[in-house]
Amino acid sequence: MEPRIGDVQGNIEKSIAKIEEAAGVQGARLIVLPELTNSGYVFKSREEAFACAEVVGSGPASIAWMKLCRDYNCWIVAGMAEREGDRLFNAAVCFGPNGHVGTFRKIHLWNQENLFFEPGNLGFPVWHTPLGRLACCICYDLWFPESLRIAALQGADIVCIPTNWVPIPGQDPNRETMANILCMAAAHSNSVFIAAADRVGTERGQPFIGQSLIVSYTGWPIGGPASFDQEEIVYADLNLADARRKRNWNEYNQPLRDRRHDVYDKMLGSQSPPGWH
Amino acid sequence: MEPRIGDVQGNIEKSIAKIEEAAGVQGARLIVLPELTNSGYVFKSREEAFACAEVVGSGPASIAWMKLCRDYNCWIVAGMAEREGDRLFNAAVCFGPNGHVGTFRKIHLWNQENLFFEPGNLGFPVWHTPLGRLACCICYDLWFPESLRIAALQGADIVCIPTNWVPIPGQDPNRETMANILCMAAAHSNSVFIAAADRVGTERGQPFIGQSLIVSYTGWPIGGPASFDQEEIVYADLNLADARRKRNWNEYNQPLRDRRHDVYDKMLGSQSPPGWH
Repeated sequence: MEPRIGDVQGNIEKSIAKIEEAAGVQGARLIVLPELTNSGYVFKSREEAFACAEVVGSGPASIAWMKLCRDYNCWIVAGMAEREGDRLFNAAVCFGPNGHVGTFRKIHLWNQENLFFEPGNLGFPVWHTPLGRLACCICYDLWFPESLRIAALQGADIVCIPTNWVPIPGQDPNRETMANILCMAAAHSNSVFIAAADRVGTERGQPFIGQSLIVSYTGWPIGGPASFDQEEIVYADLNLADARRKRNWNEYNQPLRDRRHDVYDKMLGSQSPPGWH
Repeated sequence: MEPRIGDVQGNIEKSIAKIEEAAGVQGARLIVLPELTNSGYVFKSREEAFACAEVVGSGPASIAWMKLCRDYNCWIVAGMAEREGDRLFNAAVCFGPNGHVGTFRKIHLWNQENLFFEPGNLGFPVWHTPLGRLACCICYDLWFPESLRIAALQGADIVCIPTNWVPIPGQDPNRETMANILCMAAAHSNSVFIAAADRVGTERGQPFIGQSLIVSYTGWPIGGPASFDQEEIVYADLNLADARRKRNWNEYNQPLRDRRHDVYDKMLGSQSPPGWH
C-alpha cells in the first residue's frame, strides 16, 4: 500500500480496508503490511516522527489491527512507528486473535532513520502461533544475512518483512529488483518462507519500488512480485511445515546443521574484524 | 571445463590449454578453474580419490599451474583434490608468478564428499596479491552466507569460487539457476566481486550445470552466465578497487560496518542454536 506521511488516521483506515479485503473476502490467515504503515517514511524532523508514533497495544493502529485479528481470526505483522516513553523505534508488531503477540524493532537503521529512531534492542524474536513460528525483519535488515540466519536458527518457518525499499544505484532495469533476489537467496539458503510487503508511491521526492513478494522455502517466488507503482495485495497458499519438512537436502546435509561454528567463532560476533574498506 | 574422473593427466592438459587461451591469448590476469579440476568429482571410493590427489606445490597440477603463472605473469585459483599425508581435502589453491600463494580447504562438505574428504581446517583465508585481496570458497560453502561474510570482513575484494554445481530440486527451469542468485545476493550485500567457475558434463550419472559467472560488487553479473552444458571461458574487465571504493552507500551506511555484533553474539558462533527443524 501507499501510506501518506503524517496522515495517521488515513493510513490506519486504508490498512483496515486492505485487511478486510485480504482476510474478510479472500480468507488470508497471515497478513503482512509495509514498514511504517501508520506514519509514512520521510520525516522532516524527530518531532514529526514522534507525533506519528504510538505505544504498542494502546495506540490507534494497535487497537484497529487487534480488532481485525479478533474479527477475522487472523494474524497481522505490521510496520509501525513505535514510541516507548521518549524513545522511538521503527518496529514491526504482531497481533493475533488474542491480542499482541510480539514486537520486533528494526536492528539495522537505514540512512536518516538514524536521526529519528533508536536501533532495535529486542534481537530477532521468533513468535509461536497456531499457524507456525513467525519471525520478522525490516527492510535494510534483509541486507544482513545474519538477520535471516538468526531467525532460522531459532526455528522460524516464515520471516515477515515489512519494508520501504528504495531504488538501488546500479539496479539493472531489465531485471527483478535486487531486494527480491536477496529474499530468494535468504529463503533458499535457510529453508524458510519469506513474505515481504513493500510500499509504493513517492514521498517528499523519495520514490519507493513496490514489488512485494512471497517466497517459498525453496527460494522461488510463489506470490508476486507485485506492481512497482500500484497498490496490490499478493497472496499465496502455502504449508508452513514444509520449511521444516524439506530441510534435509540429502543423507548428509541439512543447511542449518551443517554450519561450522568452529570456523565462524570470533569471525561473526563481537570479536569479528571491523569490516574493512 | 569438463574434467574427467580419474584422468589426472588429461585434466591437467586440458586446464593448460584453457589457461593458455585465457592468459596467453586474451590477457587474463586472474583465472579461476572449477572444483576438483585435477581429479573429477564422482569418486567410487576413498582410494580412488586418494590416487587422484596431490601434494600442493609438488604435484603435477601444481607444477603445471605454477609454470603458467610465471610464463604469463598471472594468478590462478584452481580446485584440486589435495593430499596432506593420508588426509584428503577438497581444496582450492592459489598460485602466482612467484609460486604458491595460499590454500583454501572446502569448509562445508556436500553429500558423499563426507566419505572422502576432511572438512576444511584453514578457515577463510584472504590472500594479498598485487591484483588485490583474494578470497575463496567452494560450491556448498556459498550456501552459507557466513562464508562470504567472513571473507569480506577480512577485506576480500573478490571471492573466487571453484565449484561443481549440481541440479537443485525445485529449480525453476525458466529462471537462472539458484546458485547464480546466491552469488548475486552475496556480492551485493558484501560489496565484493565474485568469480564462480563451474564444470559441465555428466559423470557416472551425475549431471553438472555450468553457468559460470562473474558478478560485480553491485550484485549484477558482468560476465556470463556461461553455457549450462558446453565448456566456455567467461571474461570480465573490472577494477577490484571498486569493491572498497563503492562500499559507502550513503552518509550513514557501510554494510560491513553496520553489522550489529551486539545482536549477533552467541547467535552465530559456537553458542548459536542447533539449527532446528
